[in-house]
Amino acid sequence: MTKHFLNRREDIVTEALDGLLMTSAPGELARLDSYPEIKVVLRADWKKDRVAVISGGGAGHEPSHAGFVGRGMLTAAVSGEIFASPSVDAVLTAIRAVTGAPGCLLVVKNYTGDRLNFGLAAEKARAEGFKVEMVIVADDIALPELAQPRGVAGTLFIHKIAGHLAETGETLAAVAEAARAAAADTVSLGMSLSSCSIPGQAHEERLGAAECELGLGIHGEPGVERIAMRASVSLVETMASRLAATIDDAGDYALLINNLGAVPPLEMGLVARDVLRSPLGRRARLVLGPAPLMTALNMNGFSLSLIRLDAVREAALRAAVGPRAWPVPVEPRPITIQPAPRVDTVDAVTAGSDETAATLIRTVCEHLISLETELNRLDSRAGDGDTGSTVATGARSVLAQLPTLPLADPAAALGIMGATLATSMGGSSGVLLSIFLTATAQRLAGGASLADAFRSGLERVTFYGGARRGDRTMVDALEPALDALAADGVAAAAAAARAGADATRGMTRARAGRAAYVGESNLDGVPDPGAEAVASVFEAVAAMK
Amino acid sequence: MTKHFLNRREDIVTEALDGLLMTSAPGELARLDSYPEIKVVLRADWKKDRVAVISGGGAGHEPSHAGFVGRGMLTAAVSGEIFASPSVDAVLTAIRAVTGAPGCLLVVKNYTGDRLNFGLAAEKARAEGFKVEMVIVADDIALPELAQPRGVAGTLFIHKIAGHLAETGETLAAVAEAARAAAADTVSLGMSLSSCSIPGQAHEERLGAAECELGLGIHGEPGVERIAMRASVSLVETMASRLAATIDDAGDYALLINNLGAVPPLEMGLVARDVLRSPLGRRARLVLGPAPLMTALNMNGFSLSLIRLDAVREAALRAAVGPRAWPVPVEPRPITIQPAPRVDTVDAVTAGSDETAATLIRTVCEHLISLETELNRLDSRAGDGDTGSTVATGARSVLAQLPTLPLADPAAALGIMGATLATSMGGSSGVLLSIFLTATAQRLAGGASLADAFRSGLERVTFYGGARRGDRTMVDALEPALDALAADGVAAAAAAARAGADATRGMTRARAGRAAYVGESNLDGVPDPGAEAVASVFEAVAAMK
Repeated sequence: MTKHFLNRREDIVTEALDGLLMTSAPGELARLDSYPEIKVVLRADWKKDRVAVISGGGAGHEPSHAGFVGRGMLTAAVSGEIFASPSVDAVLTAIRAVTGAPGCLLVVKNYTGDRLNFGLAAEKARAEGFKVEMVIVADDIALPELAQPRGVAGTLFIHKIAGHLAETGETLAAVAEAARAAAADTVSLGMSLSSCSIPGQAHEERLGAAECELGLGIHGEPGVERIAMRASVSLVETMASRLAATIDDAGDYALLINNLGAVPPLEMGLVARDVLRSPLGRRARLVLGPAPLMTALNMNGFSLSLIRLDAVREAALRAAVGPRAWPVPVEPRPITIQPAPRVDTVDAVTAGSDETAATLIRTVCEHLISLETELNRLDSRAGDGDTGSTVATGARSVLAQLPTLPLADPAAALGIMGATLATSMGGSSGVLLSIFLTATAQRLAGGASLADAFRSGLERVTFYGGARRGDRTMVDALEPALDALAADGVAAAAAAARAGADATRGMTRARAGRAAYVGESNLDGVPDPGAEAVASVFEAVAAMK
Repeated sequence: MTKHFLNRREDIVTEALDGLLMTSAPGELARLDSYPEIKVVLRADWKKDRVAVISGGGAGHEPSHAGFVGRGMLTAAVSGEIFASPSVDAVLTAIRAVTGAPGCLLVVKNYTGDRLNFGLAAEKARAEGFKVEMVIVADDIALPELAQPRGVAGTLFIHKIAGHLAETGETLAAVAEAARAAAADTVSLGMSLSSCSIPGQAHEERLGAAECELGLGIHGEPGVERIAMRASVSLVETMASRLAATIDDAGDYALLINNLGAVPPLEMGLVARDVLRSPLGRRARLVLGPAPLMTALNMNGFSLSLIRLDAVREAALRAAVGPRAWPVPVEPRPITIQPAPRVDTVDAVTAGSDETAATLIRTVCEHLISLETELNRLDSRAGDGDTGSTVATGARSVLAQLPTLPLADPAAALGIMGATLATSMGGSSGVLLSIFLTATAQRLAGGASLADAFRSGLERVTFYGGARRGDRTMVDALEPALDALAADGVAAAAAAARAGADATRGMTRARAGRAAYVGESNLDGVPDPGAEAVASVFEAVAAMK
């Protein structure tokens, strides 16, 4: 995936930061007027009366870092260009902008560029008289023997803990000590199905269709291992066992599930389930996410981070904060499962017989079966040529059920036929007929005449189905037929249905149903098969003795 | 992008729903025990004492719909399989599970399958005695002439408004009427750079590298128009003008910016900026997002939705709710821009002269320049062979500055040299030397001896740079030299530096700096160029008369 939403390549980062600022709550965020060289987002309400917590780094990790500026987390975020450390001047400017007498803590991910640029800025700020401390986060466990592990999504824990302690008025020494201890107790590991692409640059995917990567950073660099694509539960198992090897056997942990950028929410939900069911997940006392927290542009992967909890850290992680990108931690627990209400089977109805009704139903069904070939032929002009077969299938299922229908209770009988047709016919037409009969039955049970009940049923069909007269559907025959039935009886109904069906020959533009997608010329002069079936059935009923 | 995190294809939806349930707050959500056929997520705290609001549809739109179940929004969500409507039985089961005497409202997106299945379920529920109303959302304006527009992300507005009114105890009739009126006042339009791929199915991208699609739905169906890839601001302009043509010229609107699944947060920020700066954005009194709200699996696109506001709708949209996926609406306003603290230029220092210091600096610099070729040669074994040139460049810049340095104030002079080297040398080594001199100057100004101040500077270099003795860097020479300087003077320092540099010949595994990436055999017997430079300089200084 190499396509991106962008304007000028050199404006991507400032425009994205402006988008954040424009969609943040009033009074929460501001930026300095030093675009484009110096990109600093800071709390608009900051009074320099407490320890400032500053973080940052390259862009491409949104919502990190500017998305976490706000009450209880970061005081300011300094952004470089995509995957490039901010300059010394940019960091120094941020320090000057937000640091008061209580001093500031810099939270830096362990990449050389960030360490040095934040480091020199810290030294310069000290020379200017500011109190500055720095904590370096190196949580990535991908290469256990590496002396300088990378800083990745576990950094969020440090932002939250330091931010909370600073917000509550702790001293710089106390905030820095807590942050360093927290960083030392944090581990992370990433997994991805594809590498990320940088907006405005050509991209070549280094992973094959059956490969994924374990232990990657957040700058598009290759992972530690290329492994075969496997089921999510197996990928998670590999990550969980490596992470588990780095943490204590006892004690509580918080677990952060981070979307690296482009995993769709459906899959992040599935991954979260697999993670929480793994042995590692069962160690988690608090879970954060799944959510995009420290992304790597559009990387199709996720990372897991853990921090060992104590009372202070747990309280800090749970404390409410301003930034909306921070996920509320929850205590994982078994899913609450409630019994589904039982679908009552129809009570054994007093199955009265009614020979007139039985003859009527038999006539209608047999007539519909006789139309199978002709309706299929008509349907083949606009659809897949199965209207006749679908209708015949429904008719046969009703015929088969006829001996057991409670015909002395027409409402009950219609309701049962409706349920049967929904299943036997399938598809839209089965459901529409079922709606027709179910709604008709309900009105009938409420005391309406059969003709009025049928009209209510049709009203429901047009509401749910969306077809109206003139749309070239069975409604074009059924609606005039039922109106005539209520007023003048079955012969008039048959005539009205026939006129309605014939009128569909002139409707060369279907507006509902599948025929809506067919060009006009194919339909010229051909009646709609549904309307034709309705008319033909009414004629057959009118002809009954 | 056709790779997905999944286990068995047939379990994707239930596993993703379980992931949501496992990461939701305790007591918020439950599901029915009718997996896998019937997938219903509902409020765990629901007492059936108010109007229930039920929505749902195919899966693949997460966090819709289950992610919006909770206080103030949906009472229950019914999920089908990916992009497939839930069955009539599933909807009917949800209705039965949450509907009490006040009744329930079904919120249905305008797709035939959803209309019919929710519709038949509604009719069956009515036959069972439940009070049921249904609102159909048809907000997509992609095809203005279409009689049956699709329901897309604007449906979120209806969920929120109906959910709020139900939560506050309104009657079913009132909730349904408000929902229908809201649906009639809602419009949406989508844009994507690539189509979505269904987990477990082969995918062929229908869009070329220079194409994007306007007016697509949320089920992977093609958009209305394929247009040439353009700048974000231009794509947004096209969408904004089409949406603007469908809304009133006056009145307030809420605007929802929806990530269709796989747009990285960086780009969603940029898109949000472009939208809010468009004429349409300036009409928005409230903005929601950008956020994934109604996704289409991993579609790399976004949609914009608008609803006309009145006092009731605005209050409903602003009301706090349980579901964390709901974005807090904000009033867009100009970005708050604060002046960046000015980087003070160094005040004109009383430029005292100090001939001894000048001679010392000149000797060191000229000696470093003389080492250029040799240091480059040493560096070529492990790096890109430019250590000598980089060092010589720095030395030349200091020499050029020497006449104006305030040498009578050593701390000030060292600070200025540090600032010069960060710029002139560039790269990590320039920043490290700058850190060294800046930190040294600060300690010197604080009253420390030169040797002690240098040792403090080195401590900062090792902290920020991460290199320790034994890592095959200049620290291997500088640290013993400075220790000896403090104790025994410059001759001892030179001897210690030489011993330290020679020791790097045996360090065949670099652990810091670029040489960390080089195999052992290349380094055997070669001293580190940085350590060699330090030793050679101390020898030159010791040899001074």
